Amino acid sequence: MNIYLDHSATTPVRAEVVEAMLPYLGEFYGNPSSIHRTGRKAHAGLDAARRTIAQILGAKTGEIIFTGCGSESDNAALRGIALARREQSGANRIVTTPVEHKAVLETAIDLRDHYGFELTILPVDGDGQLDPTAVEAVLDDDVAVVSVMHANNEVGTILPIGEIGALCRVRRIPFHTDAVQAVGRLPIHVDELQVDALSATAHKFYGPKGVGFLYLRQGTPFHSVLTGGSHENSRRAGTENVPGIVAMAKALALAEAEREAEMARLQILRDRLIGDILKAVDGAQLTGSPNHRLANHASFVVDGVEAEGMLIALDLAGIAASSGSACTSAAQQPSHVLEAMGVPSRLAVGGLRLSLGRSNTPEQIDYVLEKLPRIVAQIRGMMPVAL
Amino acid sequence: MNIYLDHSATTPVRAEVVEAMLPYLGEFYGNPSSIHRTGRKAHAGLDAARRTIAQILGAKTGEIIFTGCGSESDNAALRGIALARREQSGANRIVTTPVEHKAVLETAIDLRDHYGFELTILPVDGDGQLDPTAVEAVLDDDVAVVSVMHANNEVGTILPIGEIGALCRVRRIPFHTDAVQAVGRLPIHVDELQVDALSATAHKFYGPKGVGFLYLRQGTPFHSVLTGGSHENSRRAGTENVPGIVAMAKALALAEAEREAEMARLQILRDRLIGDILKAVDGAQLTGSPNHRLANHASFVVDGVEAEGMLIALDLAGIAASSGSACTSAAQQPSHVLEAMGVPSRLAVGGLRLSLGRSNTPEQIDYVLEKLPRIVAQIRGMMPVAL
Repeated sequence: MNIYLDHSATTPVRAEVVEAMLPYLGEFYGNPSSIHRTGRKAHAGLDAARRTIAQILGAKTGEIIFTGCGSESDNAALRGIALARREQSGANRIVTTPVEHKAVLETAIDLRDHYGFELTILPVDGDGQLDPTAVEAVLDDDVAVVSVMHANNEVGTILPIGEIGALCRVRRIPFHTDAVQAVGRLPIHVDELQVDALSATAHKFYGPKGVGFLYLRQGTPFHSVLTGGSHENSRRAGTENVPGIVAMAKALALAEAEREAEMARLQILRDRLIGDILKAVDGAQLTGSPNHRLANHASFVVDGVEAEGMLIALDLAGIAASSGSACTSAAQQPSHVLEAMGVPSRLAVGGLRLSLGRSNTPEQIDYVLEKLPRIVAQIRGMMPVAL
Repeated sequence: MNIYLDHSATTPVRAEVVEAMLPYLGEFYGNPSSIHRTGRKAHAGLDAARRTIAQILGAKTGEIIFTGCGSESDNAALRGIALARREQSGANRIVTTPVEHKAVLETAIDLRDHYGFELTILPVDGDGQLDPTAVEAVLDDDVAVVSVMHANNEVGTILPIGEIGALCRVRRIPFHTDAVQAVGRLPIHVDELQVDALSATAHKFYGPKGVGFLYLRQGTPFHSVLTGGSHENSRRAGTENVPGIVAMAKALALAEAEREAEMARLQILRDRLIGDILKAVDGAQLTGSPNHRLANHASFVVDGVEAEGMLIALDLAGIAASSGSACTSAAQQPSHVLEAMGVPSRLAVGGLRLSLGRSNTPEQIDYVLEKLPRIVAQIRGMMPVAL
């Protein structure tokens, strides 16, 4: 039995995506900056990928900057915009939320502690939801950049990006969203979201690891933080990862074409997971918003059960799950997201995230719903060891 | 006819490397930070790759930081060390050379212009060679980091890294080398080179684009400039590019195993290219050191011939070459390397780089030596258009 329920951590690369990538690992190996045929063929692949991604987002091709991962996109957005805004206008404050991915939150803290920025971290409610009026209340000429994630990786809550974007736009304050969990799962149109910058990474939508992009609206102040050659219009130096970029474009096109049908399918599975786990597992509570949440995302805290033991037992039963963020798990700290939502630490140690994707079937959900209550009971010492 | 003589720009990915990579695009797709089996399998691949690379360099596994490209490695080294050194000791000067790759030079300039560092750019001689005593003369407690490339990408000159490293070490000044062109072509042992930091990228040694590494000696002051999760011991955030990293390790192991024999083979071809071109092409001059140069690297300036026309004509004849750096070519500026070497601008516009690699045969060199003099003559208007 091998049931993968950790699609928020990473996804398998689709066969069609590997197929699209392979020619650029082989025949079309040129450096896209070279002027000879071998280089131009690589450049053509790069251009086509950029057009595909720009079109899906409703962006201009020149607004897509290819990066090495979602964390790099987040770093580039926060650092690049904050530094440029301060140089241009003296604006010196970063506004964000306490439920951001570490790539935003730690970067904002680094900019505060080592680069002299001020930092405002707005509170969220018990669902991890942010009230746009709380953003509005702190917007003034001193704000260099606002960064609010589109959908939370640990608890699945979808934040009101369009509303926050509109508030920033009327004040001409650059607005960034970390859309790493949203791209491929929610409609992403940069004008409807009213964002100036948007981060994404391929491996969350069945593309390869090691490649991402940053959408950066034309005219947004930006000071490159990865300097060198004039790649990506001098906004991100480094020989472009052509195979990865071509693969990312293919993966995004496929994800977008199938998005509505696939998310409707997953939402049914998710709702069964949530409904049945809340019924069958004593002391389980849903984390994140019940209604404004990603269609593939179910997350819980389980009273009196430590996450690690639960995950190991699930793994032994052939079920791959996580406690929250894979990116944070190595740090062995309590979830900053659950803490910010006011979840008591007694519960916060018992985080369980089940994130669905293409491989999951109704039969797999049956199996999980059969095993999970027994595992929790076993851990609580109410059952003998044999499952 | 398809003769690729641009191996300094990029190299094709070897079939064995693609084969090593594919399982990590398929079966072993987990996030290496995940604790379940799928994640642990990815983590095992990552660990094995790190051991392979560390062993080849004579480094500890914890001293290898995986990055997205050579430019990122250079940026991380310069920014990360300079910022940490200033915080620790107030040292505020960056020392480098005018022949560095733009990823070092533009980063040093950015640190001067936007982060308040002082910058010393040491002169080189007509071969692009740096005298270690010139480095020694500027070393004092105010120097935060010294960065000198191992082998020049445009003219192939090998710089005396071990000697410079020794001078820095006795003064406890961190020393970085951009070894992007050297790794896989020269012996790289971090203790013999006496470096504290060393940059490399896989696509220069028959690995894929989109992945590189930074060697960072244990104890070297370093402030991460890509913040977020605790990946790479909190020195570089972002989900690791597992397929790319596994491929890079495989490519480096192969390159290292074959290095001596392959470089001996290429040096014979290179010496024929250099000898015959200097004889057969009127007004051609070798650029870079005649003796201390990469075994695969031949570079020239050709009086009275603009590089672009020459490269296009070569391309039409099935020969992929370059004028100097692919990373700089998009900028359409005269070579900063040739300028720093004192090459008059009349000559510097006629740069030609022929960089050899695995695919090249003696017959290909015959063909190039037959075509090139005719192309140059044609461009000079001394021959009719038909070749």
